[in-house]
Amino acid sequence: MSPSSTRTIPRPRVLSGMRPTGRLHLGNYMGALYNWVRLQHEYDCYFFIADLHALTTDYADPSRVQDNIFEIALDFLSAGLDPGRCVVFRQSDVLQHDRLNTLFGMFTPLGWLERVPTYKDQQQQLTSKDLSTYGFLGYPLLQAADILLYKPDFVPVGADQVAHVELTREVARRFNQLYPGNFYLAPDAAPWEMQAILEKARKLAGEPKNSTRTDFSHHQLFEAAGQTKKIGSFGRGEILPEPKVLLTPSPKLPGLDGRKMSKSYGNTIMLAEPEADLREKLKTMVTDPARVRRIDPGNPDVCPVFDLHKVFSSETVQAEAAEGCRKASIGCIECKSWVADAIVTAIAPIQAHRRDLEKRPGVIKDVLANGSARAAKRAQETLHEVQLAMGLA
Amino acid sequence: MSPSSTRTIPRPRVLSGMRPTGRLHLGNYMGALYNWVRLQHEYDCYFFIADLHALTTDYADPSRVQDNIFEIALDFLSAGLDPGRCVVFRQSDVLQHDRLNTLFGMFTPLGWLERVPTYKDQQQQLTSKDLSTYGFLGYPLLQAADILLYKPDFVPVGADQVAHVELTREVARRFNQLYPGNFYLAPDAAPWEMQAILEKARKLAGEPKNSTRTDFSHHQLFEAAGQTKKIGSFGRGEILPEPKVLLTPSPKLPGLDGRKMSKSYGNTIMLAEPEADLREKLKTMVTDPARVRRIDPGNPDVCPVFDLHKVFSSETVQAEAAEGCRKASIGCIECKSWVADAIVTAIAPIQAHRRDLEKRPGVIKDVLANGSARAAKRAQETLHEVQLAMGLA
Repeated sequence: MSPSSTRTIPRPRVLSGMRPTGRLHLGNYMGALYNWVRLQHEYDCYFFIADLHALTTDYADPSRVQDNIFEIALDFLSAGLDPGRCVVFRQSDVLQHDRLNTLFGMFTPLGWLERVPTYKDQQQQLTSKDLSTYGFLGYPLLQAADILLYKPDFVPVGADQVAHVELTREVARRFNQLYPGNFYLAPDAAPWEMQAILEKARKLAGEPKNSTRTDFSHHQLFEAAGQTKKIGSFGRGEILPEPKVLLTPSPKLPGLDGRKMSKSYGNTIMLAEPEADLREKLKTMVTDPARVRRIDPGNPDVCPVFDLHKVFSSETVQAEAAEGCRKASIGCIECKSWVADAIVTAIAPIQAHRRDLEKRPGVIKDVLANGSARAAKRAQETLHEVQLAMGLA
Repeated sequence: MSPSSTRTIPRPRVLSGMRPTGRLHLGNYMGALYNWVRLQHEYDCYFFIADLHALTTDYADPSRVQDNIFEIALDFLSAGLDPGRCVVFRQSDVLQHDRLNTLFGMFTPLGWLERVPTYKDQQQQLTSKDLSTYGFLGYPLLQAADILLYKPDFVPVGADQVAHVELTREVARRFNQLYPGNFYLAPDAAPWEMQAILEKARKLAGEPKNSTRTDFSHHQLFEAAGQTKKIGSFGRGEILPEPKVLLTPSPKLPGLDGRKMSKSYGNTIMLAEPEADLREKLKTMVTDPARVRRIDPGNPDVCPVFDLHKVFSSETVQAEAAEGCRKASIGCIECKSWVADAIVTAIAPIQAHRRDLEKRPGVIKDVLANGSARAAKRAQETLHEVQLAMGLA
């Protein structure tokens, strides 16, 4: 065995962020954080609090931003993100995000940003806010900088968010096309292979037969390598690899009114919801509208409460609830108490962890400070490569 | 005398920058750098190489950026910018420019940027480059960040550039309106003055007569202070004061073809132009087109060469040249040799200084490194205030 076979293979890297909009609700938790906690065991993970992005919509009243950052960090750690296993940091602590954003702006056509589907959508939805700002148009570009700065292999997203990563991939492609990376020789390549490429490059450049020229551009060497068909040990080391999407489960999680759980609908159950409030709220949740009286049989397939069962209850409880509903052998109140039990069981350890952390706010501060320092180091490495390629270093 | 009268009054601050587009020509020198060298004796000066701005137009081929930065820094120091008297730095060394740019983007309407006159102009002029990019649209905002980060009292500009500072002032106004600064009590204010303002604030807020409330917002206190007419010791400490323009001489400097001297016209004489080349170039310069033959009298008022006399020659030489031209007692060749003498005299010490510095490239590096460290310190102070106001710190 060659010594190189003893090298540790680095784990694929994953990066994701979340805007600090206040305490997380169960929809936020199941749609993202729950997956993050699992990913940290398999991947080299970077998770960040996107506080700069919070300002794209909340610039006019930033009074809650500080509290929101603290609350989301509490939720992150309570839910099980382990600073010993992943890097948890705050976007605004890392100035490199802004620089990469500036640099990406230089070569990103306005049309790409104007065509991002969420741009027009959100402007129409959030009519109470003035969103025709330069920063709001550019937020997907800042997002591309957020991501590419850490060169992740994967960005975890739910099935409905796959399009969000597309602009980031386009930006990476355009960057790599404008600024080809270093031409590299694979560690196991033979010296004659490099010679073969140089000969081909001289030929392509129209050099005389006895030329010994070696100062070819990356472009020329790459083209030459492409034409020496038999050689596979070479490639262009792209500076910003295009990240792939990592599809993560994003179960349908209805709010109390049956619509998707969302802060803006006011239909949420918080991850930190006290048990009594949670049970109280669930009692008001809408059910199968056809089941008017206790004795009417219901249909779990159209009942939002049953969607919660599917996420939180065991298969046994799910089966009992479905049967009880269809046969009207249980009432909605009972069914709801079962799902309340399941949710409480799922989030009780998180809430206990939260209560513990709330007593030691210094821990949150330290975790973010350490995480941000680690992230900034990684970010600076990428930024240095980018700035070299763009003539700034 | 009170002890406070012994305090040093800080000099007003001035900030300006220049894109590194290669060695400076005489138009660049007389239009800006010549003034900067004089300003450093009277003001607290920050001068920077705007290398990020260079990328807004040159992103597709940044191969010259490094050399251009070095060359412009050489020109700065050769011409007499003294790192002991002013801060000379490189924009890209200070990440805080990018962060302030990101933050300004949050509240800057797209319309403000679309309406900047140079936006459409330059897009139409530089048709060979694709300038419909996010960064090109936003460059006046980056410029606002460049400026406001250092809170200058003045931005030196020529008469034709006054409009350029207007967007910066608008951005500062919008910022100060969204994020009022600290209400301050002048150091020489009496305690009863603060009491008077509090009383007025209570009245305005409709508090009962015996109220002792003190928790008023900055806005409320400021309004109250404004209504207690007799009191002048209070004000709102705006976080980003609007800079004023400092009109500096920008003489008409024609190029060899009679049009404005400009790199894009290929009609320049460089500040570092060797004497022989300079004299050779001047021989080809256009003159009064009506003066066809040596014996024809000419009109200095329409002769581009005479515009150079007005900038570089002594009044005596100017008078002799004008008279000689009108009477046809001198030829254009002789007139040009006189102006060549004057230019050579003006730039010889600069060129000598340049040759000396070229031998010690490490000096340039050190000056920029020191300057950038000083600039970054100042920039971070402002950024901290801004981030506090916007909820990020």
